[in-house]
Amino acid sequence: MGENVGAAARAMKNFGLSELRLIAPKFEWPNDRAQILASGAGDILDRTTLHPTAKDALADVQLVLATTARGRDVTREILTPAEAAARLREASGRGLKTAILFGGERAGLDNDEISLCDALITIPTAPLPQVKDTELKAGSLNLGQAVLLLGYEWLKTADATPASRMRNTIGVPAPRAELIDLFEHLERELDAGGFFFPPAKKGAMVRNIRAMILSSRLTDQQARTIRGMIVALVRNKYRGQP
Amino acid sequence: MGENVGAAARAMKNFGLSELRLIAPKFEWPNDRAQILASGAGDILDRTTLHPTAKDALADVQLVLATTARGRDVTREILTPAEAAARLREASGRGLKTAILFGGERAGLDNDEISLCDALITIPTAPLPQVKDTELKAGSLNLGQAVLLLGYEWLKTADATPASRMRNTIGVPAPRAELIDLFEHLERELDAGGFFFPPAKKGAMVRNIRAMILSSRLTDQQARTIRGMIVALVRNKYRGQP
Repeated sequence: MGENVGAAARAMKNFGLSELRLIAPKFEWPNDRAQILASGAGDILDRTTLHPTAKDALADVQLVLATTARGRDVTREILTPAEAAARLREASGRGLKTAILFGGERAGLDNDEISLCDALITIPTAPLPQVKDTELKAGSLNLGQAVLLLGYEWLKTADATPASRMRNTIGVPAPRAELIDLFEHLERELDAGGFFFPPAKKGAMVRNIRAMILSSRLTDQQARTIRGMIVALVRNKYRGQP
Repeated sequence: MGENVGAAARAMKNFGLSELRLIAPKFEWPNDRAQILASGAGDILDRTTLHPTAKDALADVQLVLATTARGRDVTREILTPAEAAARLREASGRGLKTAILFGGERAGLDNDEISLCDALITIPTAPLPQVKDTELKAGSLNLGQAVLLLGYEWLKTADATPASRMRNTIGVPAPRAELIDLFEHLERELDAGGFFFPPAKKGAMVRNIRAMILSSRLTDQQARTIRGMIVALVRNKYRGQP
């Protein structure tokens, strides 16, 4: 359906893919429904080319991987989406023309189309097919979803974002001196409040509190905020409030 | 919209997630459109619970990660989808109750909701935001797409599928003896056809041909097929056909 092509174009745009080729679509083209679903990716649809066969669409392509959910009766190499993306990125980096071939919603790709491709891609879905390779069932991913996941893996191969990071918009990690000032301020007030009991355990209690504070990886701003909180709490205490 | 919740349920089902909680939906519930879009995932919708606030929905959850596309004015840890999935899987493996919090289509999550979460998740989209962290723009992923990508990463953390594998439905890798029979058969017929010229180069030519055949990692069946092809080609030649 045209909708699915629109969703596919939108998914492509999200992940930096730009060239879409349609093989013998069963709907009219250009397609209004596709334009609506594509939202910001109308430029991809405008440049989309139509081809009568896979053979024609793939004529100038040097590495082709085909998505498939079904067990096949031929012996072909099957890749995970991440491995496929890595190979496409590597070939693309060498200046080769690369493509991913997706099947239609119902029928998928036929064996003749598959025979033109270098390897297959299977997207893992639940339940995981590890038990028996030949028992792979057709996943229920539609075209837009399949394009989204492959596009995502494609983008990831070029994405150097660290697995975990902090958005440092309001501060930098507190320098050790500020943390030590915080430790000593807090420990002084806790001592005054009779917190360290029994006194013999004070050393261990201090170390636990310092570890707890360090594990929060405070910014300089946060360290100052906590010192302000201590001041406010102590002020309440001297007023006789809880 | 109900459609998006249906698509989200279908994405969850594809990747082995089962428990959906809705916070103050702006549409009626149960929802017919959601049921249609969920297709095979109606059981997830049937068990979906409604909650007036994020605070209520998250009451029993021990690790919560929130998806966000927008720059935030607070300093929070931001994870890639893969890192988020790994942490959720690890916590889940220790018996903890975990959740991913998704925002609505338009407004996303507000800062009060974000303040209840342990860390944020940002899905990388094009153009990559590596240049300047504070310039992150809202991606155009909808709810169903965001749930699909996070569900996919969740499944991947439990997926031991090798990056590349062969589906061995019609053969096993050919034993060396069959390959050697193939080599010798082919080389004998090539020799008879005057292929090895100049004769001094025959050794190198043979090694190149053997390397080419080995790189195809033939099954026993494929090795036999090629020997049959050689027989057929030679038969044509003796008939005087090309």
